[in-house]
Amino acid sequence: MLAPVYIVGIGMTHFGKRFDESVKSLTASVTNAALADAGVTSQDIQAAWFSNTRQPMLEGQNTIRGQIALKHAGIEGVPIVNIENACASGSTAVLQAMNAIRAGMVELALVVGTEKMVFPDRQEQVAAAFAGGTDIHDRQGVLDYIVEIGGELPGVGRSLFMDLYAAQAKAHMQTFGSTQEDFARIAANTHGHGKHNPKAQYRTAFSVQQVLNDKPIVDPFTRAMCAPVSDGAAAVVLCSEEKLKQLGRSKAVKISACALLSTTSRDKFDYQQHIGRRAANLAYEQAGLGPTEVDVIEVHDATAYATMQQIENLGLCEPGNVGERLRAGDFALGGHQPVNPSGGLLAKGHPVGATGLAQLYELCAQLRGECGARQVAGARVGIAENGGGFLGVEEGATTVTIVEKVKA
Amino acid sequence: MLAPVYIVGIGMTHFGKRFDESVKSLTASVTNAALADAGVTSQDIQAAWFSNTRQPMLEGQNTIRGQIALKHAGIEGVPIVNIENACASGSTAVLQAMNAIRAGMVELALVVGTEKMVFPDRQEQVAAAFAGGTDIHDRQGVLDYIVEIGGELPGVGRSLFMDLYAAQAKAHMQTFGSTQEDFARIAANTHGHGKHNPKAQYRTAFSVQQVLNDKPIVDPFTRAMCAPVSDGAAAVVLCSEEKLKQLGRSKAVKISACALLSTTSRDKFDYQQHIGRRAANLAYEQAGLGPTEVDVIEVHDATAYATMQQIENLGLCEPGNVGERLRAGDFALGGHQPVNPSGGLLAKGHPVGATGLAQLYELCAQLRGECGARQVAGARVGIAENGGGFLGVEEGATTVTIVEKVKA
Repeated sequence: MLAPVYIVGIGMTHFGKRFDESVKSLTASVTNAALADAGVTSQDIQAAWFSNTRQPMLEGQNTIRGQIALKHAGIEGVPIVNIENACASGSTAVLQAMNAIRAGMVELALVVGTEKMVFPDRQEQVAAAFAGGTDIHDRQGVLDYIVEIGGELPGVGRSLFMDLYAAQAKAHMQTFGSTQEDFARIAANTHGHGKHNPKAQYRTAFSVQQVLNDKPIVDPFTRAMCAPVSDGAAAVVLCSEEKLKQLGRSKAVKISACALLSTTSRDKFDYQQHIGRRAANLAYEQAGLGPTEVDVIEVHDATAYATMQQIENLGLCEPGNVGERLRAGDFALGGHQPVNPSGGLLAKGHPVGATGLAQLYELCAQLRGECGARQVAGARVGIAENGGGFLGVEEGATTVTIVEKVKA
Repeated sequence: MLAPVYIVGIGMTHFGKRFDESVKSLTASVTNAALADAGVTSQDIQAAWFSNTRQPMLEGQNTIRGQIALKHAGIEGVPIVNIENACASGSTAVLQAMNAIRAGMVELALVVGTEKMVFPDRQEQVAAAFAGGTDIHDRQGVLDYIVEIGGELPGVGRSLFMDLYAAQAKAHMQTFGSTQEDFARIAANTHGHGKHNPKAQYRTAFSVQQVLNDKPIVDPFTRAMCAPVSDGAAAVVLCSEEKLKQLGRSKAVKISACALLSTTSRDKFDYQQHIGRRAANLAYEQAGLGPTEVDVIEVHDATAYATMQQIENLGLCEPGNVGERLRAGDFALGGHQPVNPSGGLLAKGHPVGATGLAQLYELCAQLRGECGARQVAGARVGIAENGGGFLGVEEGATTVTIVEKVKA
C-alpha cells in the first residue's frame, strides 16, 4: 500500500498564443498562483519538479530549464529536477514528486509544467520538435505502421502526429464501425465544454455539422478535431498526509493512483494491451475502484479520435460503443460521466509540458466545486489520462492518475 | 531515516569518440552489462530512468529518448522517465529511482545515462548545446559575473563553461593564493590515474611540466586541464533491501546518501554557501559520517580547477590547502584519500548524461575491489560530487552521493 499524497494547491495560466510571455514569466505566474492557493510561500517548498519539452529545440535552452525558470519565481536552493516524457511529462513529474514525498525525502513539493510553443517565425523548428516525439532514426518504422493500419502517408505542412492519429482513427472505423460523425460529435461535445472555461485557448461552440465543415486537416479530421499549438503553464503543490494535517487545507484532493507505463511490442490490433488500457487498469488497482465510480474524466485528446480511444481504454464503455453513448449525452456536461469538461486539448489548448498538470488542475477544481458553468455536479472521483510520444504502435509513455475528494 | 537502497549491478562503455555508435547501441551495450552484473534480466526491471542532455539539440530526438533507446535494449512496458539536470543528470536520475524504491513503487530499477556528443560536422550545435546549460536569455548576466570575479570575456571557439571555470580559478588564486601549478599538479595527478583505466578516453600520463606546456585553452588552463568532448554510457541497477536479500548479491554497495540541491543567490565570494559545500554537508548528514571517513573520491572535474573547488567543498581540506596536500601525495593513488582514481572527467571523458553514473560505476568497482592498477586499497566509503549547468554564481544543480561497502 503506497502512502497517500495530496494536492493542496493548483494554478494554471490562460492557455493560448501568449506572445508577450516567456517560459520564465509563465512559470512565475503559475507558481505564485499555486503557492497562494496552497496557502504557502516559496520558502516552504522543499523540492520542485519541472516539466518542459520544447525549450532545447525552440529556444536553445537545455538541461537546467527548471532551475532557471523557478529561480525567476523565487524557488532556489532546493532540489529541482527536469522531467521529460513528451506530452506525458507533467503527470510523470507529479509521479516523481509523489515518490519523493512517499520516500520521506520531502513533505511539501511543487510541480510546474511550462511550455512556450508559439513561435510563428520558427515553423520548421516547431515541426521538428513534434517529429522528435517519434524515433527520428526510424522514420520508416512510423511510415510502415501508418500504412499497415490503413492510413495515408504523411502530407506536408502538418504534424506527423496528426497522420498517426488519422491512421489509427481509420483502423478503428474499419474494426468497430465508428464514423467520422462520431469524431465530429466528440469535438462538438468538447468545444461545447471549452466555451465555459475562461482559461481555454478557444471558447467557440461548434455544432456537429460545423465541425464536419471546418477546414480539412487529414482525413477523417477537420481542424476542430485537432488540438492547437499553445503556450501556457500549470502547477500543483503536493504534500504528505502529515503535512496536510499541519496545513489544514480543507480543499485538499487525494491522489489515489498514478500509473505510468511505456509502450510494448504488442500486436497493432490488440487493443486490450493498449498502453492506455494497461495504465488505466493499473491505476484502478492502485485506487481500489473501477470505471463506474468515476465522476469526471480528462483524456489526452490531441485529436477527437484520441478521446474515443481513451474512453474505451479507461473502461467507460465497450469498444465501438462510444458513438452511441455520445448520442445519449453520457459524456457531456450534465450527463453520466462528463469527459473533458475543461474543453480538453482541443479547446483548452495543448502546451505539451503543462498539459498533464492542467488536467489535474481541472480535476481538482471540479472536486472542489469551483468550475462554475462547467461544474460537474457532485464530482467526487476524477481520472486523467495523459499520453505522450509515439513508439512502435502507440504512445511512448502514458500516465493515468486518479484523484478523490477528501471525505470531510 | 530514509530506507536503504543498494546498487547491485554496474555497467560502463568505453568513453571516447565512438563514431560507430549511437545512443541506442551505447544504451543496449551498457544495459546488458549492468543487468548481467546484477544477475538479472531485462524482464526483472520494474522501472527505468534515462539520463541524456544532447539528443534534442544534436539529433532532433526529444521527449521519449529513454523509451526509444531502452526498447532497443529490451526494456519496455515499464515506467520509464527521462531526466535532465545538465552534467548532474545521471546522479539526479539515480535519486529519482531511489525515491521510487523507497516509496514502495518498485523493488528493482535501472538507471542509464547515455550521451553521443562527438559530431565533428555539427560544431555549432555542439557549442550551442553547451551554452544551453546557462540562462540563454541572460547571457549578459553570465558575462557580468565573469568580469566581476576577475575573469576574461569569452573567446571564440571554446565552451563558455571553460571561460566560467577560468574566471573562478582566477578568483580562487586571488583569494587563496592557489597557483596555475596547483591546477597542473591536479591534472597530472588525474591523468596519471586515467592511464590505468581501460575504459578512459585518454590514457596518457602527464608530468606537471607537460600539463603546463600543453596547448593553452584559456588562462590559466591548458588543454590537459580541461575535460574533452566524449561519447559513452554508464548504468546502475538499484534495489530495495528486501530485494537484495532475494537476489543475494555479495557485491552489493549501499547508497548511504544522495543529496541534490540547486543554486542560490549567495554572495559570489561566500564559498561556505557554495552549492557543492551545501550538498556535501547534506550528504554527510544523511550518511551519518564525515569527510575523514571517506576512502575514495570522484569529483566533477570539467576542469582541474573544479577538482580543487570540490575537494574543498567536500571538506577534504581547508580552502587554500589543496596545493600542499597534493604535493604531499594525499590525493594520489596510494595516498590518504585518492581523488578521481578513474581519471575523472579530464582523462576518462565527459559524456554529460553518463558522467554521474560513471562516477558511481567507479566507486562501486573500487568498493568491490575490482579496479586492478587503479585500486584504492581497502576502500569502504566512497563519495561522488556531480554538478551541472551554471546559474547565478555556481552550478545550477549539484548532487553529492555517498556509497558504502556492505558489511559482510
